[in-house]
Parts: sequence; C-alpha cells; structure tokens
Amino acid sequence: MRLACCQLAPVIADPDGNLGLATRAIADAVDAGADVIVLPELVTSGYVFRSAEEVEAAALDRDAPLFSTWGAEAARGDAVVIAGFAERGEDGALYNSAVALDGDGLLAVYRKIHLWDEERRWFAEGEEAAPVIDTRHGRIGLSICYDLEFPEVARGLALAGAELIASPTNWPHEAAPPDGRPILHSLALATAYLNKVFVAVCDRCGIERGIEFEGGSVISGPDGALLGGPVAGRGAEMLLAECDLERARDKRCGKVNDAFADRRPERYRQSLVTPL
Amino acid sequence: MRLACCQLAPVIADPDGNLGLATRAIADAVDAGADVIVLPELVTSGYVFRSAEEVEAAALDRDAPLFSTWGAEAARGDAVVIAGFAERGEDGALYNSAVALDGDGLLAVYRKIHLWDEERRWFAEGEEAAPVIDTRHGRIGLSICYDLEFPEVARGLALAGAELIASPTNWPHEAAPPDGRPILHSLALATAYLNKVFVAVCDRCGIERGIEFEGGSVISGPDGALLGGPVAGRGAEMLLAECDLERARDKRCGKVNDAFADRRPERYRQSLVTPL
Repeated sequence: MRLACCQLAPVIADPDGNLGLATRAIADAVDAGADVIVLPELVTSGYVFRSAEEVEAAALDRDAPLFSTWGAEAARGDAVVIAGFAERGEDGALYNSAVALDGDGLLAVYRKIHLWDEERRWFAEGEEAAPVIDTRHGRIGLSICYDLEFPEVARGLALAGAELIASPTNWPHEAAPPDGRPILHSLALATAYLNKVFVAVCDRCGIERGIEFEGGSVISGPDGALLGGPVAGRGAEMLLAECDLERARDKRCGKVNDAFADRRPERYRQSLVTPL
Repeated sequence: MRLACCQLAPVIADPDGNLGLATRAIADAVDAGADVIVLPELVTSGYVFRSAEEVEAAALDRDAPLFSTWGAEAARGDAVVIAGFAERGEDGALYNSAVALDGDGLLAVYRKIHLWDEERRWFAEGEEAAPVIDTRHGRIGLSICYDLEFPEVARGLALAGAELIASPTNWPHEAAPPDGRPILHSLALATAYLNKVFVAVCDRCGIERGIEFEGGSVISGPDGALLGGPVAGRGAEMLLAECDLERARDKRCGKVNDAFADRRPERYRQSLVTPL
C-alpha cells in the first residue's frame, strides 16, 4: 500500500480556492500511485475563523458535490481519500470532521471529539467514537489533530483493529519544542510504537491571520520508524511511504511477548473508558 | 524537589556486591541533596538469570535488613528511595518488584504486572494495579520497565494523582533504534507530555551474560522537556534534576484546554480497563 500525506496551506475565507487546492493534491497523489491519500484537518475551509458566518460559508454537507469530485479522482487510482472539512450536520450544527471516501462514495465521516482552543466557538463536539473503517487498502482508524493527545483514542482504534491511524491535523508551530523536535513528531512515533500500527499525520502549513502552522506531517511504521517527514522547510509537500499493513496485524514484540495479548485490563487503575 | 536517577550495573550472582553498590548509590544521592532517589529494576539481583536457584538466592523478603539500611540512608536526607528488587512473597512466589521507602520504613511494594521475555520463567505476575504513593516529596506512581509500553499504566497513575512516575528499568540495548534514538527515550517523553507528569526512568547499564543494556536513563518534565539524560557513554552515572511537582498538578494546555478535563471517556472505543 502506498500512502500519501498531502501537506497543504489552505486559505481562510477562500473555500472555492481550497476545494481546487485539495482536489489537485488528490489528483497528484493518484498520479503518484498512492492508494491511501491523507489531507489536513479543515482543508476545505482554513482554520483561523473570525466569525460564525465564515464557518457557515465554508461548511459542507455530506452530499456536497466536492466529495463526488474527490471520489472520481479516487476511482482513477482505486484509492481511498481521508480529509478534514467543516461539516454542516443534518442537525444544523457545524462539526470539525474528517471524511473517508473511495470511488464508490463516502465510507465514513468522523466528527472530532476533542476540540482545541477556539474550535469550541465554531464547532459542536462529535458524539461518536472515532471509527475504524474497512477499506480496499486495509483497516483505517480516524483521528483529528488534538485527538492524538488522548492516548485512549489511538489505543481504542488499534484494539478495534485499525492497521493505520490517519490523522488530518492543523498543528500550531512550536518555536521552541521542549525536546528539540516538534512534539507532534514524538507523539506520532510513540503512538505507532505503543500500538504497533502505522500512523499518518497530515498537517497543514503556512501562516493564517498571524497563526503559524507546524507543517510537521509525519508517517511512522508500527515499530516507531520514521517512514516519511518531517518536511524540510515545513512547506507544501506530498510525503509518500510504502506501508505493508500486514505488519500492523502482528503485535508480537521480542521473543515471547505481544503488545496486545500482554495487556492486563483487570489490573489497570480507574475506568479510563466507559463502554459505548 | 531534587530527583536522582542512579544508573548502575549490578552483577548477576553477586547479591552481596549489589546490595553494597545500591546502598552506596543511595548514600551518594543523599549527599548530593536528592529528595527522591530512583534505582534500576532488579538492582539487588542482576537480570540475566540461569536458574530458579539463582533468583531464589537473590530474592528478598519485605522485611529484609537491606531496606532498613536504605531507610537509614534516606533518613539522613529526608529522602524517598525507589528501587527494583527480586521479591520473595509471603506466598512463597517470586516477583519482579519495586520498593518505595523513606526513613520511616516501607511505603509500598509494587509487583510488575507486565513481564518481559524470560522474566516469565522466574517471576509470578503482580496482581495489583501499579500504586500511587503519597510521599513527603509528592505523589509518586510506580511502574517497572516494560509497563511503560502499556499507556494504560501511566494514564491510570496520572489520573489517580501521580505527579511523578518513577520507573526502575532494565532496558536491552537497541543497536539501531528505528527513530535514531532509543525508543525508551521517546516513550518517557511522550508519556510525560501526554499525562502532564514528570517521568523518571532509571535504567541499568553494562553487559551481563551477553545481554547489553541500554543505559538509557532519562528524566522528563510534564511538557516533554528532557531534564536529565540520556547518559553519554551509557555507563554508571547519577542524573540529577530539579522538579517542581506542582507543575504536574496543572493539566492546562493552550489558552482554554485541559488534558484531563478534555477527556471524553464516554466517547472512547472499547473497555480499555475493567474497574478494580
């Protein structure tokens, strides 16, 4: 499976421009032979909103023509596309969502459950767990940006069978990361290692209304190996990595251990999770 | 609070020598003004056993005179000591345990719940959750080595109020770590960052019966900042770090977010944990 992370700089208050930008990126990734194509969070709208009207103007329904356009591009390469967008729900509320689709149409829409900073002004929280989707190119779990700071999300996705966690992201730039490299990078690799899954963080780049983004897209193998990124110069770029998702089905480590079989839920403290 | 990680190379089949080595390290740390002193996993016994008799010969009861000796050293500096040892349980079974003690005596003994590799030949699994201890120098959670690969452990400790997670460790050396630095290092920093706690991994060093250890002791702040280690040359060394544990009580991040208050347990997949 060839994985693409299309790091892009969408432009606030220019939804039409962003649709073109994202569609071209998908087309380029298909041309590059990508089977799974991940785009940033809110790639259709930009991020630094000034008013509810701006979010409304950029919001898309699930039956927006854009998704058919993306589906047609995906069909050209038998690909799966995952991208963040501002969603207008059937309930009229706005959500910070990620869509997964292929040539046959929508596979899933996930509404971000952990909202960061001003996102709370513009969006309603998702009320469904992050999903794992059976796709033609493997089992893909969805998570969006700040979700990565809640280890319960990735653990839950991996335990539910995700082989790849795809994370559309808009990460603010850290001028002086505490560990000498963006924490986003460390989190992606540690998340992959702990859960023995592939992790694809597709970040945005650029500066928007004074907010500088990290441009820190990164792809990790299930052993915590860096398979793609970070992008030198932190600008727009397509990362490509060959990922054998079979590897993520094998949770063995060392000679006799197994990262999942060795779990001891009855010996962990506290109820980290209420079953759905 | 001044934290010390005493990276040491215990010697297999020389328990008396190891007791002296560990006791001198504690004394040195007290002399250096340390308030909390962490020693490696199985520091009293060494790690690469050849027979059950070897483990038996090195195993200690909870009332072993050694712990009084350590308590007397701790009392000199009003310190808390955490160290790994081979425990002979009151049930006759052997455990890979960590003791926490101060000048007043034992505070807790934790029996490792995730056994690595041949540890399963020599030790019984612990049956109690990793504890959080109220000490004179803050709330300390215990975890041992491979436990760090189960994010449930650190998350549970942090949610239960741990400000520092102390992890006696015996980490085998990785000749070619996938990320260019020992995964132990990345895990410690990511664990600290995700849970907004201090993490002290006290690793052992040296080569024992052909097994080379990482010597990768590391201290992380709650923001994922490296406060101590890794040890250049990977040999015996005392790492010291000033840790303001108050910082670990504040889970805020960004302007309006909070790593704990933002959790959404009812929206996570699967029961990661069965309540105790």
